[in-house]
Amino acid sequence: MKVLRDRILSDGTSLEGVILKVDRFINHQMDPYLMKQVAIEFIRRFSDLHVNKILTVEASGIAPSIMLGYLMELPVVFAKKRHPSTMKEAYIATVHSFTKQSDTQLIISREYLTPDDHVLFIDDFLAYGNAGKAIIELCQQAGATVEGMGFIIEKEMLHGRELLQSLGITRIESLAIVDSLENNEIHIKEDQ
Amino acid sequence: MKVLRDRILSDGTSLEGVILKVDRFINHQMDPYLMKQVAIEFIRRFSDLHVNKILTVEASGIAPSIMLGYLMELPVVFAKKRHPSTMKEAYIATVHSFTKQSDTQLIISREYLTPDDHVLFIDDFLAYGNAGKAIIELCQQAGATVEGMGFIIEKEMLHGRELLQSLGITRIESLAIVDSLENNEIHIKEDQ
Repeated sequence: MKVLRDRILSDGTSLEGVILKVDRFINHQMDPYLMKQVAIEFIRRFSDLHVNKILTVEASGIAPSIMLGYLMELPVVFAKKRHPSTMKEAYIATVHSFTKQSDTQLIISREYLTPDDHVLFIDDFLAYGNAGKAIIELCQQAGATVEGMGFIIEKEMLHGRELLQSLGITRIESLAIVDSLENNEIHIKEDQ
Repeated sequence: MKVLRDRILSDGTSLEGVILKVDRFINHQMDPYLMKQVAIEFIRRFSDLHVNKILTVEASGIAPSIMLGYLMELPVVFAKKRHPSTMKEAYIATVHSFTKQSDTQLIISREYLTPDDHVLFIDDFLAYGNAGKAIIELCQQAGATVEGMGFIIEKEMLHGRELLQSLGITRIESLAIVDSLENNEIHIKEDQ
């Protein structure tokens, strides 16, 4: 996706050879027009899937997901990282973050994930794949089906795609695939 | 806003005479079409303001804000509740939550809030007004101007509006004003 690739190269920065900072347009300050372009690209790439719900994780997954849900006329559910006192019956899965060296929980109310759901999971980053793994577990608990997973940016060198594929996800789309941040130079693969 | 009022009455629930649960369409499962309608109503009500940035708080403020930012062609910044290790220079304010009986911090990078900014703050709920108060503090630290504050739902009996007015905010718009949850019956004021 050329517009995204160009934007990452112009407004993204790499730190310490491993971190890709995109807080100017994706995960702190957000460019809503880019989010709409991202949503349209997801629609194009997943045009063969039949889904009835968009699933994401707070907070940075919400912007692309709400745009996608709006354009596809689908409800969007975001997994919460804290268990609200008012949520009685919930599915819960644990995510280990290598970046933050800590465990967090992802929580979805049983009301909003059911065996009838065919889910498209959307998130800003595919890194080690641990958020996606937790989403798969939540969907298994609920009896829902994960039809596909879409990410704005994939850090290929962290092998999250292989983890998700090993868990049975066959449709994974990343709109920009970063294959190196060595010497703090951002290298993005050409579109296939 | 009749469509919002009707939706709260049909899909919202009141618990313990104080809690208004709207996780079916606003803050867990989200209805993107309603979020667009909400954004258009904010545009109508704030049509006299000149703003260059939408400010919100993760996570439930993001959906209406990104829709509003898209329609108004403005960037959206969400205040974070955790300080990312990669964010060097930040403005920080503390929010006391009466509901959760705990303090959290709101954090905005100095890069994305400056003296040039004329801000419209958007959030899902106006309750005690403490998130709004923290946003005012963050804007004061940055030298930015808060031009107005818009909320999807106001719980009038918690007097957040008075707090924000006492801090100098003259333009506050709430799209549905709940004035009683007694006996777990949701009562919403008629539009003026």
